[in-house]
Amino acid sequence: MALKVVTLVGGVGGAKLAFGLAQILPPDDLTLIVNTGDDFWHYGLRICPDLDTILYTLAGVVDPANGWGIAGDTTQVLEALRGYGEDTWFRLGDRDIATHLLRTAWLREGVTLTEIAARLAARLGVKPRVLPMTDAPVATRVDTLEYGELEFQAYFVRHRWQPTVRSLRFEGIEAAAMTPQVEMALRQADIILVGPSNPWLSIDPILAVPGLRQLIESRPVPRVAITPIVGGRAVKGPAAKLMLELGYDASMKAVSCYYGDLLNGFVSDVVDSLEGVIQPHAVAFETVMESDNHKIELAKAVLEWIQCWGSV
Amino acid sequence: MALKVVTLVGGVGGAKLAFGLAQILPPDDLTLIVNTGDDFWHYGLRICPDLDTILYTLAGVVDPANGWGIAGDTTQVLEALRGYGEDTWFRLGDRDIATHLLRTAWLREGVTLTEIAARLAARLGVKPRVLPMTDAPVATRVDTLEYGELEFQAYFVRHRWQPTVRSLRFEGIEAAAMTPQVEMALRQADIILVGPSNPWLSIDPILAVPGLRQLIESRPVPRVAITPIVGGRAVKGPAAKLMLELGYDASMKAVSCYYGDLLNGFVSDVVDSLEGVIQPHAVAFETVMESDNHKIELAKAVLEWIQCWGSV
Repeated sequence: MALKVVTLVGGVGGAKLAFGLAQILPPDDLTLIVNTGDDFWHYGLRICPDLDTILYTLAGVVDPANGWGIAGDTTQVLEALRGYGEDTWFRLGDRDIATHLLRTAWLREGVTLTEIAARLAARLGVKPRVLPMTDAPVATRVDTLEYGELEFQAYFVRHRWQPTVRSLRFEGIEAAAMTPQVEMALRQADIILVGPSNPWLSIDPILAVPGLRQLIESRPVPRVAITPIVGGRAVKGPAAKLMLELGYDASMKAVSCYYGDLLNGFVSDVVDSLEGVIQPHAVAFETVMESDNHKIELAKAVLEWIQCWGSV
Repeated sequence: MALKVVTLVGGVGGAKLAFGLAQILPPDDLTLIVNTGDDFWHYGLRICPDLDTILYTLAGVVDPANGWGIAGDTTQVLEALRGYGEDTWFRLGDRDIATHLLRTAWLREGVTLTEIAARLAARLGVKPRVLPMTDAPVATRVDTLEYGELEFQAYFVRHRWQPTVRSLRFEGIEAAAMTPQVEMALRQADIILVGPSNPWLSIDPILAVPGLRQLIESRPVPRVAITPIVGGRAVKGPAAKLMLELGYDASMKAVSCYYGDLLNGFVSDVVDSLEGVIQPHAVAFETVMESDNHKIELAKAVLEWIQCWGSV
């Protein structure tokens, strides 16, 4: 039975699940809707960290140590910038720069980010559909105790997510339209997944695209998140720290509550109990994906579990 | 005696003379006015080939084999672009890309090309003043028999200047203002030199900046070109071929005639006689600069000869 699966994803955790799904689903049945709130301009290049992480991961070229960037990439350009006296706080691999150059050139020609993602996917041999959440520029801004409002990458990379977050906003989101491709994918989805990505930094920007959250809520299909919090800690990145700063418990239960009615299913990790999960369908799996096999097994387990629901 | 020397230059030949001049003049006494008609956008980067050739040459980092680009530069990004299926007809070295990234980022911030050249010069340790001919975008267009009108780099690099040239135009030149820095340098110059650069492709765009040619003509100082044509051939590049295509003899005499009253002095090569040179002051030197010593000797010979004129 062909099942159209749409997955909302941000950075590395989401990319790992996407990799697992891509190994077991026919390419036409898998669509990734990717956060673009982290996108920014740097040295005149348009950089889309989450889109690139998804594309590189699905292409099998991602750096396995970091989970982002290209395996074996060199940094000749970065070293030359350093030679020019630049503070090279954002890592730019040389092959990565080739990606940014292509994207920037196409953007300057007026090509949409959706079409650019499709072109890069084609050139990288990535077959599932990789869709930016919107073609409009949206920029996550992080209001911090120590520095006031920071651009996302200044918060995340330059300051290594150490500042204390007071609030978040997504600049440009009111004017950001859902793309026809995103809308069609969500309307036709048999299953909607939310990857084990940071709910505030990676998933909220997607849900904030006008009409997108409502469209997901309206779909009478399984809508399931995989927890990014395991045993009270983020698998990677600032999720747990951020939750405390924003006034939540750092727990998978708090994530379940935060998603609320958006979802009707929730996958927690086996190290946590299911107590306090508010979605009607809940299950625990080993969610920390440390190998490619593990990514595939988790994807398989989630899909098989969902197909056993009977009804939503 | 301090002599303010201003030199109009284009690519490699002009850069060699500039290098020689920079070794013998105090930095404050040397100003280069550089062609920007070759500048173009490529993969979203602003590339200024002649400015970079001058800067790299004066910084002592230029690739000695080509006369442009950076010695020992790698091409990781270019190879990645090729991996993406791109036709990489324009050579982009990695360190070179760092230059383009800095420039592009500054341009996007609204910094003028004059200020950008000054910043790059400072970072490269280049002390003479390197001035773009204008801050406005100007684009040399080459009308060819075989392909119709081509962008300059398409003609020069992609087609290796093999198409037959019918005419040239400098798009945007009418709106290009002379910068205060260029105007001041020309007004204060004690000697104005025209490098052994292509008169049509490298020097004409500079002279076409509104008011610039008239300003040079009005200055009662030595105004001297060094021939780019030696023994009926271009030292490098398409000058001789272009001259024939545009209806001139491929000779240093034709260059002398072409510059006409703009100049009052002309330096030909020892392999040519001075017959037919129309400027009142003429001399022959060994003008083909094959070593750094030779660049210095030519610069010295030209300046010493000019100082012996007595009057203009």
